[in-house]
Amino acid sequence: MPSGGAEGRAEVIATLSRLAHEQVVSSTTRDLLDAAEPLCDRLPADSDDAALIRVTRRDVDRARKLPADFVAERARAASQSIQVWREARPRNDFATFRPYLERMVEFARRTADYLGYTEHPYDALLDGYEPEMTSREVAALFAQLRDGTVPLLRAVVARASAVDAGVLRQEYAEEPVRRFALAIVRAFGYDLDRGRLDTSAHPFSTGFNRNDVRITTRYGRQSLGALFGAFHEAGHAMYSQGSAPSLERTPLAGGASNGIHESQSRLWENLVGRSRAFWQHAFPALQQHFPTQLRATDAEAFYRAVNRVEPSLIRVEADEVTYNLHIILRFELEQGLVAGAIAPQNLPEIWNAKMTEYLGVTPPADTDGVMQDIHWSGGLIGYFPSYTIGNVVSVQFFEAARRAHPDLVDRIRRGEFATLLGWLREHVHTHGRKFFPRDLLERATGTPLTPVPYLDYLRAKYHEIYGIQSRAG
Amino acid sequence: MPSGGAEGRAEVIATLSRLAHEQVVSSTTRDLLDAAEPLCDRLPADSDDAALIRVTRRDVDRARKLPADFVAERARAASQSIQVWREARPRNDFATFRPYLERMVEFARRTADYLGYTEHPYDALLDGYEPEMTSREVAALFAQLRDGTVPLLRAVVARASAVDAGVLRQEYAEEPVRRFALAIVRAFGYDLDRGRLDTSAHPFSTGFNRNDVRITTRYGRQSLGALFGAFHEAGHAMYSQGSAPSLERTPLAGGASNGIHESQSRLWENLVGRSRAFWQHAFPALQQHFPTQLRATDAEAFYRAVNRVEPSLIRVEADEVTYNLHIILRFELEQGLVAGAIAPQNLPEIWNAKMTEYLGVTPPADTDGVMQDIHWSGGLIGYFPSYTIGNVVSVQFFEAARRAHPDLVDRIRRGEFATLLGWLREHVHTHGRKFFPRDLLERATGTPLTPVPYLDYLRAKYHEIYGIQSRAG
Repeated sequence: MPSGGAEGRAEVIATLSRLAHEQVVSSTTRDLLDAAEPLCDRLPADSDDAALIRVTRRDVDRARKLPADFVAERARAASQSIQVWREARPRNDFATFRPYLERMVEFARRTADYLGYTEHPYDALLDGYEPEMTSREVAALFAQLRDGTVPLLRAVVARASAVDAGVLRQEYAEEPVRRFALAIVRAFGYDLDRGRLDTSAHPFSTGFNRNDVRITTRYGRQSLGALFGAFHEAGHAMYSQGSAPSLERTPLAGGASNGIHESQSRLWENLVGRSRAFWQHAFPALQQHFPTQLRATDAEAFYRAVNRVEPSLIRVEADEVTYNLHIILRFELEQGLVAGAIAPQNLPEIWNAKMTEYLGVTPPADTDGVMQDIHWSGGLIGYFPSYTIGNVVSVQFFEAARRAHPDLVDRIRRGEFATLLGWLREHVHTHGRKFFPRDLLERATGTPLTPVPYLDYLRAKYHEIYGIQSRAG
Repeated sequence: MPSGGAEGRAEVIATLSRLAHEQVVSSTTRDLLDAAEPLCDRLPADSDDAALIRVTRRDVDRARKLPADFVAERARAASQSIQVWREARPRNDFATFRPYLERMVEFARRTADYLGYTEHPYDALLDGYEPEMTSREVAALFAQLRDGTVPLLRAVVARASAVDAGVLRQEYAEEPVRRFALAIVRAFGYDLDRGRLDTSAHPFSTGFNRNDVRITTRYGRQSLGALFGAFHEAGHAMYSQGSAPSLERTPLAGGASNGIHESQSRLWENLVGRSRAFWQHAFPALQQHFPTQLRATDAEAFYRAVNRVEPSLIRVEADEVTYNLHIILRFELEQGLVAGAIAPQNLPEIWNAKMTEYLGVTPPADTDGVMQDIHWSGGLIGYFPSYTIGNVVSVQFFEAARRAHPDLVDRIRRGEFATLLGWLREHVHTHGRKFFPRDLLERATGTPLTPVPYLDYLRAKYHEIYGIQSRAG
């Protein structure tokens, strides 16, 4: 968008937000729901119709708590604030951004007040991204993760020289990277008759309906990062493409939560795309695309390179071990902001202190510190936990699929991804938003949300890569 | 869009069409209008407020004649039909497209019936693109144009060898063409802080508000056509960018009619971009971009090359002399379709016969014949006359600007376009939709719609280029 268009777009988004809100809270919707609800008792709880009534009621109840003017005003402020962030971030200009951030934090607090909560205002926000989850649960999960991750990271950093990622720091032309990424996501099962792969400043996926779900990635001159961006976004897109046709154009189309969505992207990016089995299959083809750069490398060395762990400043570039520490930091800051315990003006200082404490790196500038993510600028507060929940759940799903198909990893090693996708389609994708994340997870895996499989996965993988002696307990 | 997305998009567009329609015809809008209308008498007729009431009343009255279900159904059918056309056209498959075309013609006839008309159902459709104009007026204008153009074309064709366009049939790399096009449209006055130039399969301009108006062009390996596509779209975009800020987010933002819009694109594409004065200014810079290709060419030869006249199959590639004959043909067919005098199944035959009669060329396939334009597939019937009205009006505006600034052409020869743009801003752009095309034209030029200046312009330019002896009378 040309820079001049920001203000006009803010007005349009405010108007559309208001109109959409008005439809949801209208008396027509309410009357229809009131008439339908008594039928619920006669329907199986997992039927489409029962879920439609249940989920719509929840959406409507939530929306009715927010005045239409407030929704429009918040949307307009978010558009403006995002635009200011876009311009201020490259100039490392937190001072200009600060009043807009303060305003978005204030909107988040007012949102929580309108929505109501019993324990912490953060609960009201979190519930918008992770239905029926509380910050108490998140905090408990994150504490376990942190306690499991910090010693692992320390052990890995002590043996940093065990992995050489030099092979990745060469010149990789964009076009062959794109062709290879496209071939892989197609092999995963991303349907290109109902999708496409484009280039953008930051990778994303966006969908209009299950038959039009598009992804982007970004290309760096000295990076194969575009591959993992494409795998990640294809994971999101396959989830959307797999939503049952019967749910189209209803509130049930889409994904169960941001965390469940992220579980799909991380599963394909990491549990498949950064696995040894996958690169045993895919490396020869990549080598054909880059015979010069990859002449002296083999699948095993490449596997190790793409799994190099290194504490760094930027969340979206973080490896599997350090990623959740970035999220835990944001979760703690968000809770403080919403509760009023942290003032936005103190954020840069607190951010940098926590980065030093958790990751041992200190941002030299807010550009790569507190201003690195777009989320807060648009008022997305309460969203970050979903990323880590996604990591945790991705392993729970993968392990459940492997219990159903014990040869799953061998199949991946043969370039056969249909078994995995089929399991995900049946147990996750097809249900759209029908079930709360908690229920979906239980139905699919038989267990509630737990960090244990994720921590086991991390330890097994990185102990082996870095040659760390596992200790009992 | 991936092909799978067409159906879902059709549904979305149908829903949005219905919602927009419902807002326009709502009792709220009607009550507000009823309350405002008595104020009109106390307002100057050319005030923003009086125009707002007048134009909104017209829009509302027109919209209220169409049932919301019909609008949604028509929008859905149009989306489907466009998609079928997209797939059938390259396969030269009129048979597959035909039932969809028949359906869109039927929608057009029903639209005319709903809207009402006194003389010809076509009037009701035309009025949607050229407010307050009748097909009788269009027919009279087109007859004069045809009578003036056919002998000119005959004379030009007889001296076809007088102009050599071989210089254009070389390899022109895309990137320098793009850079040159961008420099020129910026010099014209297209504001790139409020716009951008991209690449697409067909050139177009699209705007979200006056501060975000974007254009595209297309690049051919053996063509500088991208330049004229960019000039054309920049003309449209400068009109939208020049709409008064006070009209933003009201029904008065935008352009007076499709024909007036086209006058702006054709003015910059042809009256500036294909003028001798312009290329005397711009050719040296183009030559620097393509020193090899343009080594043996000078500004005069280049000017002649880009004005070569040649009857051809494709409207969008037609030169200034033959262009209107393509439109006249379509206008005649549309009138026949809407009146029921022509059945869609006979279109290919009639199309080819008329092409042979008017232009002396016969399409070898429907791909480059009756299926070449997207318009009919989307139900845009009554739209084509706007193109020729645009050509006619472009010269009326240009001559009026020259009366105000007798050295206008000298200024263009010096690369000074601000005088011309300033005149257009003041007399055309700033008014948005405030005035009916007829009134806008009279206010700006002092004369009603007339083909005389356009025919005089064509004759003077092409007699000179082709060395044709002018005869008196």
